[in-house]
Amino acid sequence: MDSVAGPLSALIGEFEKLPTIGPKTAARLAFYLLSADPDDAAALARAILDVKERVRLCSRCFSLTEDDPCPICRDPLRDGTTLCVVGEPKDVYAVERTMSFRGRYHVLGGLISPMNGIGVGKLKIKELVERVAAESVREVIIATNPNAEGESTALYLARLLSPAAVNVTRLAYGLPIGGDLDYADEITLARAFEGRRSL
Amino acid sequence: MDSVAGPLSALIGEFEKLPTIGPKTAARLAFYLLSADPDDAAALARAILDVKERVRLCSRCFSLTEDDPCPICRDPLRDGTTLCVVGEPKDVYAVERTMSFRGRYHVLGGLISPMNGIGVGKLKIKELVERVAAESVREVIIATNPNAEGESTALYLARLLSPAAVNVTRLAYGLPIGGDLDYADEITLARAFEGRRSL
Repeated sequence: MDSVAGPLSALIGEFEKLPTIGPKTAARLAFYLLSADPDDAAALARAILDVKERVRLCSRCFSLTEDDPCPICRDPLRDGTTLCVVGEPKDVYAVERTMSFRGRYHVLGGLISPMNGIGVGKLKIKELVERVAAESVREVIIATNPNAEGESTALYLARLLSPAAVNVTRLAYGLPIGGDLDYADEITLARAFEGRRSL
Repeated sequence: MDSVAGPLSALIGEFEKLPTIGPKTAARLAFYLLSADPDDAAALARAILDVKERVRLCSRCFSLTEDDPCPICRDPLRDGTTLCVVGEPKDVYAVERTMSFRGRYHVLGGLISPMNGIGVGKLKIKELVERVAAESVREVIIATNPNAEGESTALYLARLLSPAAVNVTRLAYGLPIGGDLDYADEITLARAFEGRRSL
């Protein structure tokens, strides 16, 4: 490969380092950029540098932002009495895409995971407790991942916040929309039964 | 999305423009780069710019190169009596990956395709005939795509080169019909080289 064109193999190599990109996709992307409009290629390169230089954590909710505090924390139309707690900044994007939440966020920066050496002290949990006390929060929606780490983090937070005059809720477990009943795993299906509601 | 972090949405948007990259992969790549080593992100950005600035066509074989003539055309250990004719520069990479060809290349810059307005005059066919006459070529291996356009280009070239004292061969049909050359796995492509036959 190196014998053909150095910068091209270099670019293929850089693409291959990215997650989900195998050698063939890397080559396809590199050849695409080679024949793409130079302005488009420059825009991609610029966007990569920008994201490293200009994105940081919001000092209030710890999600990603260019300006501090972030646009969601500054937005007076967002409901400050409802706080959605997530593990990672990317989870904020996932919730925002649903267009169904108009409160504010609190990003823990991870989930409690003794296996990976992530204890309570490494997460923005103290900051969450302080915000709940200071910002007249009425509901804390815990939207951590539906797995063991997300579950234990949720239970820990619920116990920690129980003295505060705040309603702590957790996202519902159930069947994914559009799925088949017989494709659902047993645990999900059992949770869907537990969480059944009157029609 | 825009409300969360401008440079991040910008990067996701740029990734989405690339082939095979959907919105979720674009987001995943952007978040990966955000948490990646700044040097790795800078290397990717640099590689994108380099490929646009420094890669051009070899004036002899018309494959991609940083220096002209390309390393394969300059390499005295490559067999100058065997010429592999391919449609696109990326096909050179596909053949090189098999490690089973030690001759030189000739890139047509496309395949004959009346449907897409690509006639003989738009391809480096005159240059191929000139090279065959000037470079004491003994075998021309036609490695165009195993589809209708590649096949008609191969037949056209075989007829065109028949007056020359040169053996014209075509890659064996171990290649899956209807596919693209650079999608073939290395073993299939290597087998196709071994089984090449006179036209």
